[in-house]
Amino acid sequence: MANCIRFIAADAVQNATSGHPGMPMGMADIATVLFRDFMKFDPKDPSWPDRDRFVISNGHGCLLLYSVLNLTGYEGITMDDIRRFRQVGSNTAGHPEYWHIPGIETTTGPLGQGVGNAVGFAIAERVLNATFGDDLQDHFTYVFMGDGCLMEGISHEVISLAGHLKLGKLIAFFDNNAITIDGPTSLAVSDDQAARFAASNWHVQEIDGHDTDAIREAIHNAQAVTDRPSLISCKTVIGFGFPTISGTRKAHSDTPGEDEVSGARELLEWNSKPFEIPEPLIDAWRGVGSRGEATRRQWLNRLDASPIPVKIEFERRMRGVLPAQWRKAIARAINEMSGTDTPMATRKASGLVLEHLTVAMPELIGGSADLTPSNNVKTDIQKEIAPGKFSGSYLHYGVREHGMAAAMNGMALHGGLRPYGGTFLAFSDYCRPSIRLAAMMRALTVFVMTHDSIGLGEDGPTHQPVEQLSALRAIPHLAVFRPADGVETAECWQAILERNEGPSLIALSRQALPPVRHDHSPGNKSAKGAYVVLEAESDEPIVTFLAAGSELHLAMEAHEILRQEGVPTRVISMPCRLLFEQQPEEYRRTVLGSSGIRVAVEAGIRDSWDRYLGESGYFVGLTEFGASGKAADVFEKFGITTEAIVRMARHGISEHEL
Amino acid sequence: MANCIRFIAADAVQNATSGHPGMPMGMADIATVLFRDFMKFDPKDPSWPDRDRFVISNGHGCLLLYSVLNLTGYEGITMDDIRRFRQVGSNTAGHPEYWHIPGIETTTGPLGQGVGNAVGFAIAERVLNATFGDDLQDHFTYVFMGDGCLMEGISHEVISLAGHLKLGKLIAFFDNNAITIDGPTSLAVSDDQAARFAASNWHVQEIDGHDTDAIREAIHNAQAVTDRPSLISCKTVIGFGFPTISGTRKAHSDTPGEDEVSGARELLEWNSKPFEIPEPLIDAWRGVGSRGEATRRQWLNRLDASPIPVKIEFERRMRGVLPAQWRKAIARAINEMSGTDTPMATRKASGLVLEHLTVAMPELIGGSADLTPSNNVKTDIQKEIAPGKFSGSYLHYGVREHGMAAAMNGMALHGGLRPYGGTFLAFSDYCRPSIRLAAMMRALTVFVMTHDSIGLGEDGPTHQPVEQLSALRAIPHLAVFRPADGVETAECWQAILERNEGPSLIALSRQALPPVRHDHSPGNKSAKGAYVVLEAESDEPIVTFLAAGSELHLAMEAHEILRQEGVPTRVISMPCRLLFEQQPEEYRRTVLGSSGIRVAVEAGIRDSWDRYLGESGYFVGLTEFGASGKAADVFEKFGITTEAIVRMARHGISEHEL
Repeated sequence: MANCIRFIAADAVQNATSGHPGMPMGMADIATVLFRDFMKFDPKDPSWPDRDRFVISNGHGCLLLYSVLNLTGYEGITMDDIRRFRQVGSNTAGHPEYWHIPGIETTTGPLGQGVGNAVGFAIAERVLNATFGDDLQDHFTYVFMGDGCLMEGISHEVISLAGHLKLGKLIAFFDNNAITIDGPTSLAVSDDQAARFAASNWHVQEIDGHDTDAIREAIHNAQAVTDRPSLISCKTVIGFGFPTISGTRKAHSDTPGEDEVSGARELLEWNSKPFEIPEPLIDAWRGVGSRGEATRRQWLNRLDASPIPVKIEFERRMRGVLPAQWRKAIARAINEMSGTDTPMATRKASGLVLEHLTVAMPELIGGSADLTPSNNVKTDIQKEIAPGKFSGSYLHYGVREHGMAAAMNGMALHGGLRPYGGTFLAFSDYCRPSIRLAAMMRALTVFVMTHDSIGLGEDGPTHQPVEQLSALRAIPHLAVFRPADGVETAECWQAILERNEGPSLIALSRQALPPVRHDHSPGNKSAKGAYVVLEAESDEPIVTFLAAGSELHLAMEAHEILRQEGVPTRVISMPCRLLFEQQPEEYRRTVLGSSGIRVAVEAGIRDSWDRYLGESGYFVGLTEFGASGKAADVFEKFGITTEAIVRMARHGISEHEL
Repeated sequence: MANCIRFIAADAVQNATSGHPGMPMGMADIATVLFRDFMKFDPKDPSWPDRDRFVISNGHGCLLLYSVLNLTGYEGITMDDIRRFRQVGSNTAGHPEYWHIPGIETTTGPLGQGVGNAVGFAIAERVLNATFGDDLQDHFTYVFMGDGCLMEGISHEVISLAGHLKLGKLIAFFDNNAITIDGPTSLAVSDDQAARFAASNWHVQEIDGHDTDAIREAIHNAQAVTDRPSLISCKTVIGFGFPTISGTRKAHSDTPGEDEVSGARELLEWNSKPFEIPEPLIDAWRGVGSRGEATRRQWLNRLDASPIPVKIEFERRMRGVLPAQWRKAIARAINEMSGTDTPMATRKASGLVLEHLTVAMPELIGGSADLTPSNNVKTDIQKEIAPGKFSGSYLHYGVREHGMAAAMNGMALHGGLRPYGGTFLAFSDYCRPSIRLAAMMRALTVFVMTHDSIGLGEDGPTHQPVEQLSALRAIPHLAVFRPADGVETAECWQAILERNEGPSLIALSRQALPPVRHDHSPGNKSAKGAYVVLEAESDEPIVTFLAAGSELHLAMEAHEILRQEGVPTRVISMPCRLLFEQQPEEYRRTVLGSSGIRVAVEAGIRDSWDRYLGESGYFVGLTEFGASGKAADVFEKFGITTEAIVRMARHGISEHEL
């Protein structure tokens, strides 16, 4: 049965003259035993909420996943699809892409990410189990990983987190083939992986990855260990079956060539043509695929037998529908924010919004990469998740931004939870690969990033984001919110929760900001991405200010100074460029207006504003890293002040001879 | 003597009402023993090439470093400077900034980076030792690190690399105080750090970090171990001396308050006023500072006694002066490139340039994060560095992009080497925090990033950069080069090596590209950042195309089609936006020209081009992640073709009614 996987992989790579045959051929035995004897799944319902999750973190081995999905009878993938491996328009991409074929649980390829997602799946499972019990949520998460995954830093973060949390239902298989692209792993790594995992509180077994009895026994043992995650380190031969290139780097990602493929046919006594599987083997694999149906029906019966409110709540959570009470929670928060004149940091406003939201939405699961008191992300009602104790809704992720982001992606994909997690905006760089994957998968992960500019003050340039806002706005499908006060913060949270098209990131100030939105009117202005916050007193405004976040009030002050001088100006608040770009052209044109001069203001670099500035490039912001000092002094030092904005407007007026 | 550090730290934080007293007070005993009894340094010559390197990776504890520099007599830092801790304009920033005070070896603060830099220092030392011998290069690298550093993924990458390479002269001190910002480390981590380091081939000792005899003995032992790096895990009390907050998270980064500070004075019997150090202690510390002068003079004598060519070469390398033969090497490469009509991938061109450069420049130290054959970064003459064997100039970094970048920064800062390292451009995200720090420190690190667009083809969206070019161009001081053919590739390498203002990144194509620069004329056009590659046949061109890299030849084809239609167009190649922005205004204006319509072309998002496009935003590029398929098919799918560029130009012409 394992040879079915091997030859689908070898023939598909040979046919495409591109791809990675080595991993599927090396891990075929492990996959066969896992799916045949253990995996809880039913190809008839790929999204069954209590299915076991299966992730290949070494995503270049996607043909292993494609072939298993095809062989066990998932309808989304035919042998013709596999024949079109790596072609434009086919669903069998060069790396597995989330749900391009139902059964692909997450997008992998950038190494180590899948391990992080798997830890997220395993956390989600335990958290939901704590709420809904064994009857409704009780599954394993299995993850395959290669030498590369284990060299990546992210693997340390999530292995350490998983061991700490005692994720007993997480079982990881290390494809210990000792080969990477450059050659033998001895070129670059000497880690004792078994000892390393043991040091992080994992149960560890070392086996021959081609000994099916040993694999079966190891999985049995791993399932029996409930107080620790399990590593099964499998000694394998990369490209198992190739006569000359197996066990070498040539088997990793080279097209094997006809000789190797036919040699493998001889060695493994495989007489079928490419993409043809002998009938008895098809039957055996289809049998594996149909094994889970009865289990799924029992689960459905248990769901039906659950108390009605439990069933309704479970289904609501799994479908990702917001609860009835969430609107009231937002309304209360907005009400609270609009009733004050007291300056407030938007991180604090966000914390107050979350106080309401976490009461209304049990699916919210918060956390921080060791900046809980700074990010304002833990609310009064949230209980902490602790090792082996999953009845809470707040996670101390430790100083692990990357691991947090990847785990949150896993939780978001798992279903039943809406994860949000905090760090400083400057450290978005530390988790950027996972933010990107969230965007690519359209996962509804929420990144809460405080200390969003030089306004954080004394910690200085290493902690002050400068280029991060523009760099994050550059990521397709990532909605970057930067609210200017409490009302906008609440509106942005509303927009985040209503958004179904991808992840969101909310950038929040450390420093207190004066409220700018006393006039709270019905409708979510921030959700349109940008809106006019101050109109000109004339039908022919001369200057339009664009700003976001902590600089909006500076632009509004500049407006007032110029108003007194008789210069009519408008002020646009732009909390989210992506949502603004998605508005109808008519709205966009109305907001941007037709004043000859536009001045943008942000305590960051100009790149993400340039499209609105035209040739002039009137921008008040930064071209340089920040400095350590009191927030006000730092703003002064870099010339981001009301006076500088007024000067820039006057400069524009003189250049335009207006 | 340790109390001098403690009270400078406590008083400075109390005075600034901002900062982190806990680490300096907790690690004061370790620092005192290390500097008093071991460190090879001389405040009279902070840049002495054979000094021991000292890094605090837990950079928030900068006051420990500031106080030791002050106490031992570095001239760059006075007690008044420390009094102005964390104020704008002072040199005592909230985190240590590279060479703001001579003696600060690297900028730290983002956790884990310093460990990576230290590994780089230790590699550089061994590599230079292999060339210049014990007489000229033979020093230790010491690094302090906290719980946070060891949770970060990057720590895994560099610990694993250091253990693999057997960096016997690297000694790391773990500030095992079991406290982070959120509270006790038991909230988030259960790793057995000693076992973890042992699993990565480190020599490990565990001691009481307040027992000066134990510290001394441990350092002795660590120095004696020459075939492995050493970890000294020090059990410490954070904020040692504070009566009530010591040992708690309140000692980490809170202003302690007058009561705690005076309580500490009582407990530790410290009777001096803030920022005053008793005469005998000053004397003792100054004695420590003067201990190294004799050693340095002996070293200078050895340098003077070296054969003249060795001395000259050592000094050249340490001053970072390019060797005489480098210009010929570049000229040869350019000559080779301009003599061909054969399409060539720019990664391949880069490899050919490196063949010449590595012969001419022994200071070049190459490497790749396990993509050696893909990045074309290893040349024929380069020998591999292997565990314990440092006579080579090529490093297999393993699948550790982040660790590679941080280690390269360390090598660049160390002096004597010019490091370059390769990965795929999409994975620049994995090492972005280190790229940022290179830019902040103006370190001359070179990032070679191949597979620079959807043109990489079959590997698909996870591997295809889309937003990365714009996101990288957003980083201040980072010169991002994207050459269009072989000649430009050689010119870009020339510009990279001549650049002294910060790091460079060169983005290179996987796919072959037609040569565009047959007309190689004297002078480095790419070094100006942008230049006119095709002039219009008319004095009044209607359209100006801007492009870079693999899309330049498409714009040039569009130019030809429009020329035949009688539409005069110009084509600008822009291999480096940063260098272009640094040209005189006159040059910039001449290059950009005054045609009414500008069309930019790049297989990426538009953000970094927007400033040249004005209101129109005529851009042929991407708004979406890529797709898996043959390169040509993927370009076609996303409409990045000559025809699309022509259409966009025509569209602009019709909108402008020209």
